[in-house]
Amino acid sequence: MKKTVKTNEANNKMHVVNHLSVKKGMSVNELVKAMEGVGVLGSKRIATACNIMEAMIKDKDCTVFLGCAGPLVPGGMKNILIDMMEKKLVDVFVTTGATLTHDMAEALGYHHFQGSAAVDDAELNKKHIDRIYDSYMPNDVYEGIEDFFNKHLVAFEKQMNIREFTEKIGELLPAGKKSILKTAYEQKIPIFCPALADSGIGLMIWGLLAKGKKINVDAFDDLKDILNIAWDCKKAGVIYVGGGVPKNYIQQAMQFCPKGSSYGVQITTDREEFGGSSGAPLKEGISWGKMEYQAKRVEVICDATIALPLLYAAVLERI
Amino acid sequence: MKKTVKTNEANNKMHVVNHLSVKKGMSVNELVKAMEGVGVLGSKRIATACNIMEAMIKDKDCTVFLGCAGPLVPGGMKNILIDMMEKKLVDVFVTTGATLTHDMAEALGYHHFQGSAAVDDAELNKKHIDRIYDSYMPNDVYEGIEDFFNKHLVAFEKQMNIREFTEKIGELLPAGKKSILKTAYEQKIPIFCPALADSGIGLMIWGLLAKGKKINVDAFDDLKDILNIAWDCKKAGVIYVGGGVPKNYIQQAMQFCPKGSSYGVQITTDREEFGGSSGAPLKEGISWGKMEYQAKRVEVICDATIALPLLYAAVLERI
Amino acid sequence: MKKTVKTNEANNKMHVVNHLSVKKGMSVNELVKAMEGVGVLGSKRIATACNIMEAMIKDKDCTVFLGCAGPLVPGGMKNILIDMMEKKLVDVFVTTGATLTHDMAEALGYHHFQGSAAVDDAELNKKHIDRIYDSYMPNDVYEGIEDFFNKHLVAFEKQMNIREFTEKIGELLPAGKKSILKTAYEQKIPIFCPALADSGIGLMIWGLLAKGKKINVDAFDDLKDILNIAWDCKKAGVIYVGGGVPKNYIQQAMQFCPKGSSYGVQITTDREEFGGSSGAPLKEGISWGKMEYQAKRVEVICDATIALPLLYAAVLERI
Amino acid sequence: MKKTVKTNEANNKMHVVNHLSVKKGMSVNELVKAMEGVGVLGSKRIATACNIMEAMIKDKDCTVFLGCAGPLVPGGMKNILIDMMEKKLVDVFVTTGATLTHDMAEALGYHHFQGSAAVDDAELNKKHIDRIYDSYMPNDVYEGIEDFFNKHLVAFEKQMNIREFTEKIGELLPAGKKSILKTAYEQKIPIFCPALADSGIGLMIWGLLAKGKKINVDAFDDLKDILNIAWDCKKAGVIYVGGGVPKNYIQQAMQFCPKGSSYGVQITTDREEFGGSSGAPLKEGISWGKMEYQAKRVEVICDATIALPLLYAAVLERI
Repeated sequence: MKKTVKTNEANNKMHVVNHLSVKKGMSVNELVKAMEGVGVLGSKRIATACNIMEAMIKDKDCTVFLGCAGPLVPGGMKNILIDMMEKKLVDVFVTTGATLTHDMAEALGYHHFQGSAAVDDAELNKKHIDRIYDSYMPNDVYEGIEDFFNKHLVAFEKQMNIREFTEKIGELLPAGKKSILKTAYEQKIPIFCPALADSGIGLMIWGLLAKGKKINVDAFDDLKDILNIAWDCKKAGVIYVGGGVPKNYIQQAMQFCPKGSSYGVQITTDREEFGGSSGAPLKEGISWGKMEYQAKRVEVICDATIALPLLYAAVLERI
Repeated sequence: MKKTVKTNEANNKMHVVNHLSVKKGMSVNELVKAMEGVGVLGSKRIATACNIMEAMIKDKDCTVFLGCAGPLVPGGMKNILIDMMEKKLVDVFVTTGATLTHDMAEALGYHHFQGSAAVDDAELNKKHIDRIYDSYMPNDVYEGIEDFFNKHLVAFEKQMNIREFTEKIGELLPAGKKSILKTAYEQKIPIFCPALADSGIGLMIWGLLAKGKKINVDAFDDLKDILNIAWDCKKAGVIYVGGGVPKNYIQQAMQFCPKGSSYGVQITTDREEFGGSSGAPLKEGISWGKMEYQAKRVEVICDATIALPLLYAAVLERI
Repeated sequence: MKKTVKTNEANNKMHVVNHLSVKKGMSVNELVKAMEGVGVLGSKRIATACNIMEAMIKDKDCTVFLGCAGPLVPGGMKNILIDMMEKKLVDVFVTTGATLTHDMAEALGYHHFQGSAAVDDAELNKKHIDRIYDSYMPNDVYEGIEDFFNKHLVAFEKQMNIREFTEKIGELLPAGKKSILKTAYEQKIPIFCPALADSGIGLMIWGLLAKGKKINVDAFDDLKDILNIAWDCKKAGVIYVGGGVPKNYIQQAMQFCPKGSSYGVQITTDREEFGGSSGAPLKEGISWGKMEYQAKRVEVICDATIALPLLYAAVLERI
Repeated sequence: MKKTVKTNEANNKMHVVNHLSVKKGMSVNELVKAMEGVGVLGSKRIATACNIMEAMIKDKDCTVFLGCAGPLVPGGMKNILIDMMEKKLVDVFVTTGATLTHDMAEALGYHHFQGSAAVDDAELNKKHIDRIYDSYMPNDVYEGIEDFFNKHLVAFEKQMNIREFTEKIGELLPAGKKSILKTAYEQKIPIFCPALADSGIGLMIWGLLAKGKKINVDAFDDLKDILNIAWDCKKAGVIYVGGGVPKNYIQQAMQFCPKGSSYGVQITTDREEFGGSSGAPLKEGISWGKMEYQAKRVEVICDATIALPLLYAAVLERI
C-alpha cells in the first residue's frame, strides 16, 4: 500500500465517530441527541437540524418563516403544523393551494383516508374517490368548499390579495375542527399561497366567477406584505418542508432581509444535480443574498413525514 | 430448485427482449426506435414516450398542453420549447415564474453562464452573480426587467389576468432575441403561470407597486381561460417536463375535459412514494378524472435536459 | 364538477387519516405508535416496519436474516447491530467487505472521524485520510489489519470458506473493543460476505498471497451453510438495511425456504424503476418464491442512519 | 434590490449558455455535441462523458476498466457491451453474478421477456416466471445452467480462481448466441466477479457441491490478477455503469495504479448523501489515491439504459 504515514496530526483535530446507543424507553430527544456523535450522514443531519430549529426558536430576534409543500394533510402532519402555530414558534407560513384545500376540507368535516397506490384507479373514479399516492380524498369535498364560498359570498366579494383571502377563509371556517387556516387566523400568522389558483379552492372560485360573481383577488399585492416582514426582521430563520413554490417564495423574500436568513433547515428528497429550486442546497442561496454566509444551515434528505415528527418531538422537549 | 416446469405457454404470449444494437452514425430517431425492443426500463420508456408524443402531435383532434418546471432556460433547453411553439406542436403552455424571468432576461439581452456548484457562494455574491446549481445569472438582469416594466408602464396598468399579463410581456419584448414569451405571443399560444408572483418578475412588479404604480393582475381570472380550453377540446394530450405548479395546474384543468387527457408523457426525477404531485404517476390522475382510463401514458424517470432533446430530436424526424 | 355522488359507502370501509400529535417528552415508541394512524407515506411505513420487526422477533419459529450494506460503521450504527446480536434478535448476518473492514479497524483500536464532503480530496490524500462521503478513515488502518493477519497467519492458512474465515477473524480479534465480528463469534451468529475480496480485508490477504503465503478461502463453499439454514427454518424473516450483495444473497437463499420469507422489512433509498436488485420492492420476490404471497412486508424509503435507530429504539421498548 | 453593479468583469471569463438546437435527422453524435454548450446539468454531463470516453479510448497508453451492475441483460444492453469488447475498447470487465447468469442463460438459448411491474407476482410464480422489475426470466434457465455445468463437470473440477472460472464458462459456452462471457473469452478480456456466489450460477454450483462434486474456486486468488493489471498500466480509465461491487472492486484496484485513474465516467442514479460507494462521486476517490487529482471525470446521473446507448452511439461515431 502506498500510504503508511501515521495520521496523528490530523486525528488530533477531528471528532471521532461515536456509535449511537439505543436505550429502552428513551425519549425522542434522547435519541436525537445520541445522533449528534455519529458519522455525518442523515442521522447527524437530524441532530443538527434539531439544534438549528431550537436555536432559531429560542432566538428572540428571529422571525421564523415556514414553507410547506407536499401532502402534509393527507399524510397526517396537520397537528404538528397547528401545534407550532399555537405555540407561536412560526411567524410566517407559506404553502400550496393543495394543502389549504385539504385543510379546508377537514375543517368542513370531511376526512382523508388511508388507501393504497396499487389500486384500480378507474374503480376509485367510479366511487368518486381521488387518490393522493396512498391516501384517498372523497371528491365531495369540492361540494363542501363550494357551499362554503356560496354561503360567505359577500365576505369574499371585496377586492383583496391572496394573504387577505386566506385570512378571511380562516376567519369564517367553523370553529369545531382543528385547522391550519383557522389557527393561523387566530394566532395572527399570515398565510401566503402564491399559486392558490392551482388548487381545489381555485376551481371553486372559478365556479363562482363562471356564475358571474365578483371575486377580485390580486396576484401580486401581498408581495408587499411578505417583503416588508423580511425587510423589517432583525434576523430570519427558514424551515422548508419540501420545496416548490413555498420554499422559493420565502427564499426570494430573504433577498430583502438585511442580511439574508441566519438559520435554515430544509427537509427534502429532491436532488441538487437536476438544478431545480426544490433540491437546491441552502448554500446556493448565499450567492443570491438569500442566506447569510455564516448562517447555521442543514439539509435533511428524508421523507418529511418521518423527519418532521422526529424533529418536532425533539424540539418540543427542549423548549 | 423448486420450479422446473417449462414456461412455453407463457413465453408464447410475451415479447422477447431484443438487445439494442448501436450503429455508427445512426440518427437519434434510429436510436430511439432501437430502444423499443429492450427491457422495459428507461430506454424502453424513452421509445414509448416518443411514440406517444408522435401520436398526440399527429392527432388532429388533440389539444397539446405542455407544462414545464425546472431550470430549462439556464439549462439550455429554450430553443427546443420555442421550436415546438413555432411548429405549432403545442397549444397551451404552463410554466413557472422563474422560467419566464430567465426567458425575459435573455430576451432583453442578458445571458446565463456555465458555472460550478463547487464554488464559494460568498464570492459569487460579491460579484453579483446568482447561482442556479451550476449555471450563473448576473444579478443585473433585475435592473433590465425593472427598466422594461417602467418603460411600458401604461400598458401594464390596466386590470388583467396572468395570462393576459404574460401575453402583454411577449408583445412588448424586443424582437431581436429568441424568446419563449415572444414566440408564444406570435403563435397565439397562451402562457399560464399561476405563481408568477414567485419570481423575479414578481419582485419587479412589487417594486412598482411600492412606488405607487397601479398594477392589477387577478390571481384567479385566467382559470376560466384554461378550463374553457380543456372543456372544449375533443381530445387532450399532456406533456410534463418536471412537476410543480405547471403539471398540477394542467392536471386540474384535465378534470374539465370531456374524458380527461388521452395522451400523457411525463419526464420527472421525483419519486412516487413521497406522495407529492410532482412525482405522482399519470395513472393516479385516472381516479380524479384527469386522465382517461385507456390513455396512452408513460413516465420517463430522467433528467429533463437529457430526455427532452432526445425525445424531441426523434419526434422531429418523424413529423 | 363532474363528481357529486356522496361517498358514504366507500368511507365506511376505509380508515380515516388520524393526525399525528407530538407530546413533550414522548418516548420513541410512543412516536412510532402515533405514526400508525397517519396517511400511508413514510411515517406510516415506519410504524408498519416496527410492527413487522416486533412480530418476527417475537415469533419463536422465525429465523431472522439481517442484510446490511452501506457505511453503517463510519455512520455510527455499529452499536445497534451489536446490540441486536447480543439480544439474539438476529440469527444470520450478511454484509459487505467494507463493513467488516471498518469493524475490524475499530476492533483493532482505530477510529472513524466526522469529516466533510466539501473538502479538498488531494489534501486529504496527503494526510493519508480516506474519505467516505463525510466520514474519514485514517489510511493506516490497513497496516493494522495487515499486522493482525501476519500475527495470526497459521490460523488462516488452513482451507476454509468465507463464513469460517469471518468467524476466525471474530475469534482472534482482541476483546477490548465493541465489534460486530467479535460479537457474532461470541453469539454464534454466522456472518456471510460473498464479496469479501472486494474490501480492505481482501487487499491485505492479497498482500500475504503476494508474499507466498497459503490462504485458501473457497468462494462457493459457504452457500451450503446459508442455504441449509434457509432450508431448515420453519419461518424466515428478512431485514434489509440497504441493498447490494447482502440483500440479494439473502433473497436467493429465501428461494430454498419451505415457503419463502414470512416477514420482510427493507430500508432503502434506491428506486424500483431502474430495475436493480437494491431498489426492488419485496413484492417482486414473490414471483421468485423468495417471499410468501401473504408475507407481512414493507419498504421504508429512508436514509438507514435515520430509520434504523428510530425503528430499533421503538422495537426495543416493545420486547 | 441590493445588487446593482454590472457584472462585465465576471462575464468576460465565463461561457455563455448556448441553447441546444435540434435538427431533423441529426445523428446521435450531433445531438451529443450540441449538448456541450448548454447549462451544466445532465445534458452537459452527457457531452462531457462522451468526450472523456473518447479520450480514454483514443489514448494508447490507457487501460480501460469497465464495471457494470444492474439489469443490463434483461434491460437489453448486452449487445453494446459485446460490441465494446469486440472493438477492443475495454481491457478489463467487472460485473455481478446476476449479469453473468443472465448472459449465460441467453447464451444457452433462453430469453428475457418484456413484462410489467404491476403484475400479480403470485401468478407469475405459478407460471415459473421470475420478475426483474418489468422484465421476466423463465425459471427454467436454472435447469439449463445446471445441465451446462453437469455436462462440463470435469473442466470445472480443477482448482481455479473466479476469473479463471468465468473464462472457462466463456470457453465452453456454445458459439451460436451472442454472449458477454463468450466474447470476453474470445477477445481475451478478463472478467472479474467477486460476488459470483451471489447469483444463479452460484446456486447451481451449490447444487453440484451438495451432490459431492469437487468444485474449488478461490475467493481471493484473482485479486492478484486485477491488481497486477492496475499496477502495470501506464494510465487507467474507469467506466462505471451502476455501482455496487463492480465499481468498488475496480476502485480498490485503482489504489495500485501508479497514479490512480486518469479518466473516469460514472453513470449512476444513486445519491452521494447516503454515503454508499455506489453513489460516491469520483472525486471522493482522490483522497484514497484511486483517482488522479487532475483526472478528467464526470458523473452522469441517469438511468443507464438511457445514458449508455446515447453515449456509445456518439462515441462510436467518433472513433
